[in-house]
Amino acid sequence: MRELSFRLSYGDCDAVGIAYFAIYYRWMERAYSGWLYDHGLRSGELQESLGVLTVGVHSECTYQRMVRVFDELTIRLVLDRIGTTSYTVGFDFVRDGEVVTHGAMTFGCRDPESGGKAGIPERLLTVLRTLPEQARA
Amino acid sequence: MRELSFRLSYGDCDAVGIAYFAIYYRWMERAYSGWLYDHGLRSGELQESLGVLTVGVHSECTYQRMVRVFDELTIRLVLDRIGTTSYTVGFDFVRDGEVVTHGAMTFGCRDPESGGKAGIPERLLTVLRTLPEQARA
Amino acid sequence: MRELSFRLSYGDCDAVGIAYFAIYYRWMERAYSGWLYDHGLRSGELQESLGVLTVGVHSECTYQRMVRVFDELTIRLVLDRIGTTSYTVGFDFVRDGEVVTHGAMTFGCRDPESGGKAGIPERLLTVLRTLPEQARA
Amino acid sequence: MRELSFRLSYGDCDAVGIAYFAIYYRWMERAYSGWLYDHGLRSGELQESLGVLTVGVHSECTYQRMVRVFDELTIRLVLDRIGTTSYTVGFDFVRDGEVVTHGAMTFGCRDPESGGKAGIPERLLTVLRTLPEQARA
Repeated sequence: MRELSFRLSYGDCDAVGIAYFAIYYRWMERAYSGWLYDHGLRSGELQESLGVLTVGVHSECTYQRMVRVFDELTIRLVLDRIGTTSYTVGFDFVRDGEVVTHGAMTFGCRDPESGGKAGIPERLLTVLRTLPEQARA
Repeated sequence: MRELSFRLSYGDCDAVGIAYFAIYYRWMERAYSGWLYDHGLRSGELQESLGVLTVGVHSECTYQRMVRVFDELTIRLVLDRIGTTSYTVGFDFVRDGEVVTHGAMTFGCRDPESGGKAGIPERLLTVLRTLPEQARA
Repeated sequence: MRELSFRLSYGDCDAVGIAYFAIYYRWMERAYSGWLYDHGLRSGELQESLGVLTVGVHSECTYQRMVRVFDELTIRLVLDRIGTTSYTVGFDFVRDGEVVTHGAMTFGCRDPESGGKAGIPERLLTVLRTLPEQARA
Repeated sequence: MRELSFRLSYGDCDAVGIAYFAIYYRWMERAYSGWLYDHGLRSGELQESLGVLTVGVHSECTYQRMVRVFDELTIRLVLDRIGTTSYTVGFDFVRDGEVVTHGAMTFGCRDPESGGKAGIPERLLTVLRTLPEQARA
């Protein structure tokens, strides 16, 4: 599952009639957790499976097009960045082939004992590298 | 679309590790609005298309089984009740063929001028009657 | 804390401009958990403190008045029902002295070993009885 | 109202037991809309009062400390940036005097006719300048 689609309902839109800016974040986590799960990893139990914790250190969204109730959106995971001890997964929200919103979540790897920074485990790197790199200039 | 499926993510679950009791309501609205939309009706614009307003007068959920992160749920709309000026749509949340949660939303029809109760328009009745009646004893 | 007040923001309202029907549930849990916490109980750790689990078995809301963005609401906890092995806490959402929405959450007590029904522990009963009983006819 | 306080409840926390990364965004909008409202502006109706639209173009959060259920947080609005046609409001989430999360929302001003960029209206600038500038290095 590298894609997840949904249709905006009234609960996703604010009183002004456009998609509420905050709704994207829960969809990002749903897409990310589901994608890891399909690769045999539970994002809440990485310490057990990988020996490191990952903690969310940053999240963001850039809104490029207005989105309205009943629009159909597809979320596509992309690889925004792989660092030494952290990585950023990107989320393209696509409507009719056009990216309307781009989100990103940055996770840092931590040693479960010391709490200090830790390298990204090889198994997680392998999974991350299955994502297409971001094409945007 | 009389069914909508999703997999529970971390954001759907509380600190205790089970599905948060409130998550079902947004899924109910999503399923209801999407189903009406597939029948050519926008639940937020019924006054224009049907000549009456519908207002939510009651909602509820009965929790029958514990649901956990990564469980797959399917929402099935059922017809709980058709009255004279109000109706109740039921929502079976099904996991592996078993109803784990049953939700319901009751809507009352209102005259847009007077605000008083109004009969359910024929077109809406026709759509509601496409739903299977609830089988539970 | 038997009261909790908030002002509706855009994120609480749907595209139609009135309070979204689902928002009340999270406020109910916030008020309930905070109230128990002020009585020295963490609703997610009752097994440790009381020897029983409580599981949510039902929730509901009855919508009596339309509520709009920037309205100020106060939540008041009331005692809807005490049974033998379950109890219902009510939530009056009050605007300018008038109840606009009434919510309720029903919890069942369970034996942590067997999972079977258990009596409401005395300490929890004492806390529940600090709530005013519902006055509605 | 340049401050808004709340106590984390179970619904704010994920299955891992810490504050869910997405919860901050709704609090940011609540604090922002409420603050503008106290200055006589409704963020959803700025076209009527100011002659321009403001559209959200970016939002983000940086997570600096772990936050847990029942922690008390206070949101403080700060001025992150004023540009020519856009501005960024910052949100310090403070626990016991320490910033645990910093959020930001960037709004762009748009001409309601053409949809093109527009300058920040003087009245809005005056309100924005009541905010303390961010002190972080």
